[in-house]
Amino acid sequence: MSKLTSDQVSSPVPRDIEVSQSLEGSLAHISKVAEDCGILESELEPYGRFKAKVSLDVCRRLESSPNGNYVVVTGINPTPLGEGKSTTTVGLTQALGAHLGKKVFANIRQPSQGPTFGIKGGAAGGGYSQVVPMEEFNLHLTGDIHAITAANNLVAAAIDTRMFHENTQSDEALFRRLCPENGGERRFAPVMLSRLSKLGIDKTRPEDLTDEEISRFARLDIDPSSITWKRVIDTCDRMLRNITVGQGPKEGESRGAVRETGFDITVASEIMAVLALATSLQDLRDRLGRMVIGRSRRGEAVTTDDLGVSGALCVLMKDAIKPTLMQTAEQTPVLVHAGPFANIAHGNSSIVADRVALKLVGEDGFVVTEAGFGADIGMEKFFNIKCRASGNTPQCAVLVATVRALKMHGGGPPVKAGTPLASVYKEENLDLLRRGCANLAVHITNALKYGVKVVVGVNVFSTDTQAEIDLVRELALEAGAFSAVKSSHWAEGGAGAVQLAEAVMEACAATRADPSTPFRFLYPSETPIKEKMDTVCREMYRAASVEWSPEAEEKVAIYEKAGYGKLPICVAKTQYSLSTDPSAKGAPSGHTVFVRDVRASVGAGFVYLLCGDINTIPGLPTRPGFYDVDIDFGTGRVVGLF
Amino acid sequence: MSKLTSDQVSSPVPRDIEVSQSLEGSLAHISKVAEDCGILESELEPYGRFKAKVSLDVCRRLESSPNGNYVVVTGINPTPLGEGKSTTTVGLTQALGAHLGKKVFANIRQPSQGPTFGIKGGAAGGGYSQVVPMEEFNLHLTGDIHAITAANNLVAAAIDTRMFHENTQSDEALFRRLCPENGGERRFAPVMLSRLSKLGIDKTRPEDLTDEEISRFARLDIDPSSITWKRVIDTCDRMLRNITVGQGPKEGESRGAVRETGFDITVASEIMAVLALATSLQDLRDRLGRMVIGRSRRGEAVTTDDLGVSGALCVLMKDAIKPTLMQTAEQTPVLVHAGPFANIAHGNSSIVADRVALKLVGEDGFVVTEAGFGADIGMEKFFNIKCRASGNTPQCAVLVATVRALKMHGGGPPVKAGTPLASVYKEENLDLLRRGCANLAVHITNALKYGVKVVVGVNVFSTDTQAEIDLVRELALEAGAFSAVKSSHWAEGGAGAVQLAEAVMEACAATRADPSTPFRFLYPSETPIKEKMDTVCREMYRAASVEWSPEAEEKVAIYEKAGYGKLPICVAKTQYSLSTDPSAKGAPSGHTVFVRDVRASVGAGFVYLLCGDINTIPGLPTRPGFYDVDIDFGTGRVVGLF
Repeated sequence: MSKLTSDQVSSPVPRDIEVSQSLEGSLAHISKVAEDCGILESELEPYGRFKAKVSLDVCRRLESSPNGNYVVVTGINPTPLGEGKSTTTVGLTQALGAHLGKKVFANIRQPSQGPTFGIKGGAAGGGYSQVVPMEEFNLHLTGDIHAITAANNLVAAAIDTRMFHENTQSDEALFRRLCPENGGERRFAPVMLSRLSKLGIDKTRPEDLTDEEISRFARLDIDPSSITWKRVIDTCDRMLRNITVGQGPKEGESRGAVRETGFDITVASEIMAVLALATSLQDLRDRLGRMVIGRSRRGEAVTTDDLGVSGALCVLMKDAIKPTLMQTAEQTPVLVHAGPFANIAHGNSSIVADRVALKLVGEDGFVVTEAGFGADIGMEKFFNIKCRASGNTPQCAVLVATVRALKMHGGGPPVKAGTPLASVYKEENLDLLRRGCANLAVHITNALKYGVKVVVGVNVFSTDTQAEIDLVRELALEAGAFSAVKSSHWAEGGAGAVQLAEAVMEACAATRADPSTPFRFLYPSETPIKEKMDTVCREMYRAASVEWSPEAEEKVAIYEKAGYGKLPICVAKTQYSLSTDPSAKGAPSGHTVFVRDVRASVGAGFVYLLCGDINTIPGLPTRPGFYDVDIDFGTGRVVGLF
Repeated sequence: MSKLTSDQVSSPVPRDIEVSQSLEGSLAHISKVAEDCGILESELEPYGRFKAKVSLDVCRRLESSPNGNYVVVTGINPTPLGEGKSTTTVGLTQALGAHLGKKVFANIRQPSQGPTFGIKGGAAGGGYSQVVPMEEFNLHLTGDIHAITAANNLVAAAIDTRMFHENTQSDEALFRRLCPENGGERRFAPVMLSRLSKLGIDKTRPEDLTDEEISRFARLDIDPSSITWKRVIDTCDRMLRNITVGQGPKEGESRGAVRETGFDITVASEIMAVLALATSLQDLRDRLGRMVIGRSRRGEAVTTDDLGVSGALCVLMKDAIKPTLMQTAEQTPVLVHAGPFANIAHGNSSIVADRVALKLVGEDGFVVTEAGFGADIGMEKFFNIKCRASGNTPQCAVLVATVRALKMHGGGPPVKAGTPLASVYKEENLDLLRRGCANLAVHITNALKYGVKVVVGVNVFSTDTQAEIDLVRELALEAGAFSAVKSSHWAEGGAGAVQLAEAVMEACAATRADPSTPFRFLYPSETPIKEKMDTVCREMYRAASVEWSPEAEEKVAIYEKAGYGKLPICVAKTQYSLSTDPSAKGAPSGHTVFVRDVRASVGAGFVYLLCGDINTIPGLPTRPGFYDVDIDFGTGRVVGLF
C-alpha cells in the first residue's frame, strides 16, 4: 500500500484511463499485493502482473479466525450519471488502508464488457479512486463472464437439442441412446440418478426400468411455451432481444425446432446470480443442478440436473468460483467477483469473495462491498438475499449521496447523460436541496429497520458549497444517520476519504460495542411470497398497496406449491425512484406497485417480481464508444476507453 | 524436460484425462518451462501454474538469431476416428526434446470448447503423448476464443445497429451524432479518417464536408442481402444455424430490423483466421480493419474500418495475440495458439507462435506444427496460405498414416465413431493395405511438388502386424518418401517416437545440406482465382475439371475486380477423400470439382471456395458427452472429460 504523492495527482482530473495508465509504473506486482494481505503463494494463481485468482482454500485455512468489519456501500436513488458508489467504495478502502493503516479489502462486481463499447462509463471507480489497470478490469478480466456465457449457452443448446431429439425418437430409442451399452454393460451416468430419485424410481440399473418408467425417465417432454431459459451474450445487441431459432433445413418446422426466444446480456444469466450467492464449489454444483429451465407438459419443473448438464456447468465454472485479486490506485487489495443484474437479480458481488476477505483482514480489518442501484432495492437485496444466504451481516452501511441528485429529488430539472447540466446543479440552491433530502431520509430510515448504522458519504463536486454540504449533514443526522461527512476521493484518492473512513470505523466500533440492536431481516423466509412483497413495498418503497396481474397471481400459486415460496424475493423495478415510476422523485408515498410477472431463479435462490419494463440486453447508440477505442502503436497502450 | 519413467506408464493406456491427472504432480511450474526454453521473466505472463502467455517481444529480442528447423505434421485422408496427427506432433516433440536432447516446441491449435461437451475426442493429443493438464487445454485456456467471440459479435451488433439507425435518421442527423460537438469542437475519430480516405474525401474537419460528402460518409447503406458476417458462439448449437433477428417490439419489421442470419461456431470466425495469419499486433490491427462484412447498395465493400469498430476489435484481441505456453507429458514446451477451421479457413495454428518458437529453439532446434485435416487440404493450405504469409518454410513434412485408415482406403468397410470396428481392421490383411497405400502415395507425391522431404509416420495400434508395417514402409519409400517409420508414442510417450524423431532430424539435415531443390509454392499469388483452383484441383486432388455455379462465377468476377484475385485460395471440401465425394476412398482421379459459392476473408487474406456442404456449427447428439462431466468432490478433480 502506498499513498498517492502530490506528483501523482493532477488537477483537473484526467480521463479515467489516463489516470490508470499514469499509475501503472508504480503498481505492485499482484504477488506482492497478495503477500501483503496474507494470501499464501499456494492460494494464488497470477494472471499476468496485475490480476490473480484467489483460492477458496483461504477460508478453510482461516476457518477459526475472526471475521473483520463488514461495510456495505449503497446510495440514494441516483441520476442517470450515477452518484459514485463504486468510486466511494474504492476511495474509502484507499483511505482505510493506505492512510489509516487498516487491513482492508474493496469487494466489487465485475462489469459487463458489452456496455464498455456502447455508452461510456467505467465500473472500476474513477479519478484517483479506481481499480487499476482499468483496461484489465473492464475487458475479459480473468474470464469469469466468458465462463458464464459458455455455461448458460450449453444449457440452452441442451434444452433445444433435447426437444429436437425427443420429437424424432421413440421412448425406447431415446433410452437406448441415453444409456448405451458399453463393454456389454449399460449404466446410468451419476447425474441421471438425481432425475430417477426425483421421479421416485428407486432403481440403479437401466435393465430394471419398466416401459412406463423408461418413458418418464427418458422423455423430459418440455413444454416449449414454458421455457424461461434464454441464451446470453456479453455484447450490447438489441437485435437479439427477440429472435426465432431452428429455421435451418435440417431443423425446421417439420421437426418442431422453430421457436421464438431471445438473448439476454450475460450478467443477466441466472448462472451469474448463482455464482454470486454460492458459498463453496460444492454449493455452486448443487445450485447449478437446481436451476429450473421450464416445465414439462405434465407441469413438473425441468431442471439442469434433468438435462444432465449440471456437472459440465460446474466444470466450466470451476475457475470462475475463485475471486480475482486486483489493486486500487493506492495499492490496497480489491476482490472483483460476480456482477449480477440489480433488477432481475440481486446486484451484489459474491459471497465467497466477502468470506475470503473477512477472514484475511481479521478482527480489526474492514471489508467494504457495494450494493447495486439505489438503497431501496440494492441495500434491501443485500440484506434480505445476500446476507441471508451468507450469514454475514454488516456493521455499517455507507449511503452515498450527491448534492446534484438531491437537488433533482427536490424538484430540479431532469439530469441526462450527454446533455449539459442545468445551472441549478452548479450553483448554491438550499431550497431544492432541503426538499430533495427527503429521499436521503427515507433510505436512512430504511437501513435502521435492519438494525444497521448509517454513515452518509457526500460525494462532493467542485461546485458544491459548504452551506450545501452542511445542510445535507444536518438533515442526515436528523433522519437518524450515525454520521454524515463529505468525501473528495475522486479528485484526491484516499486522502479525500479519510474523514469518511474515520466515520465508518466509529460506526463499526459502536455496532460491535452495542449488541442490544442486532441485525434483523425485514421478513422471515417462511412468509408467503405475497406477504413478503407487501412488507418490502410498504417498508422500503412507502407504497400503499400491491397489485398483481393474473399471470403473476398464477405464478405465485405455482411457485408456492412447488416450495419456492420460502425463497427471498427480488424486486425488478426502476432505480430512479423509490416507487415504480422513474419520474416520481423525492420521497413519494401511498403509491401502488404493480407486479406484471413473477419468475423463479431456483438455483440462485430467489423469486423475482417484474414491476415495470425491464430491459435485459442493451443496444448500441448511433455512435458507440468503440469509435474511440484503439491501440496507440507509439506507446503500445489502449486509448479511448472511458 | 523429463522422460516418463516406467512407473508412470500404464498398460493398457488409461483414459486421456486419467493419464493427464496422473502426471500432474510431476509437471514443472510453467515459469520453469519458460526459463528452460529461453523465455525471459519479463516476456511471460503466467495464468496459474500450468499456462502462460508469451510476449511477442521474444521475436524482437532474437531478431538476428537463426531460425530452427520447421516441421509440419500432416496426414492421409482420415477415418472419422482420426489418424493421430496431434498425438504424433506431441509425441515427436517429446522424443526430440526429452529423449534426444534437442531444443523443441510443439505448436498446435487451440480446440473449440463446444465439441468438448458434444461428441468425445480431445485435441491435446492422447495417451502418453498429450499436452497437460488436458482440462486446462480443452476448457477456456487463456481466453483467446472468448476474446474472438466478443470481437466477432461486436462487429455483428455494429452492423445491425448501424442499419437500424440509418433506417430511422437523416444523413444530417447521422452525421451530427457520428461527429458530435464536444467543447465547441467537432472532430473525426481517427478510424473515420480511413473511411474518408477510401471515399476519396481529403478533408480532416467535419465542418468542411459538402452535403453529398456527408451522405457518402455517414450512410454506409449496407445491402442486407449482401451481409456475410454472422454471429458466433463456442457451443454446439444447431438451432442457431438459421435464425431471424430483430423481432422485438422496439426493433421489428417497421424499422427494417428483421433479418435472417445465423451463428457459426467461434473458430469459424474470420477473426480466428486473422489471428492465425497475423504477423504482429500492428498487422493484426490492419487485418481487423480490412475485414469485409458485405456490400453497400452501391456495390462497394463495407469493412470493419467503415463501421468504426476495428480499433476496439484490436483492443479486445490484444492479449489473444500472445501464444499460450503449456507442456507435454514429458515437460517439453508447447505453444497453443489459434484454431481456425480447416475447411472455410486454413486450419493451421498461428504464425506468431511459430516465429517465437523458431527463434527460441535456434539453429539446431525443431519446431513441429500440425496442419488440419488430410494433407490434400491441410498441408496445401499450410504451404500456400500460411507459409506464403509468414515467409517461413518447412524442412520436412511428417505424413501420419494408420494401417486402419489405409485398409479403409483399400476397400475396407466404413469406419464410424461409436460403432465397433470390423474385424478386417484388427487382423492382418496385406491386400487391402496394399491397395489403400495408393492414398498415401498421392500425398507423398503432392508434398514433393513443394520441394519438401516427406517422413511417413505409421501411428501403430497393437493389432498392426510387422508385415503390415513393413508393407507401408516399402510402398512409402517407393512413392518417394525420404523415410518411413513406425511410431508408438500414444502408448509409450516420447520413447515410442524416437525413431520417427531421428528420421525427422535426418530429413531436416538433408534439406539444409541440399539447396538445389528449394521450397516452392504451387502457384504464384498473381494467378487469377480460377486458374489457381484449376492448379490445386489438378495437382492436389487429381481432378480432371472444375465446374462453377453461376453464383460462384459472379463472385469470382466481383472479387477479381475488387483486387482479391491476388489472394491465395482456400478450398472448403471434405477431408475424407482426395475428391469432393467423401465416399471416394483411395486415390480417385479424373473427377470434377464443383464450386458452389465463393467468399472472401479479406482480413485474413484468402478467397474461399465452397465445394460441398460445409457445416459451420455442429449440433449435440441425443446423449452429449456432458452427461459424464463433473467434479469429483472427493479428489477435487474433473471427471468424464474424454
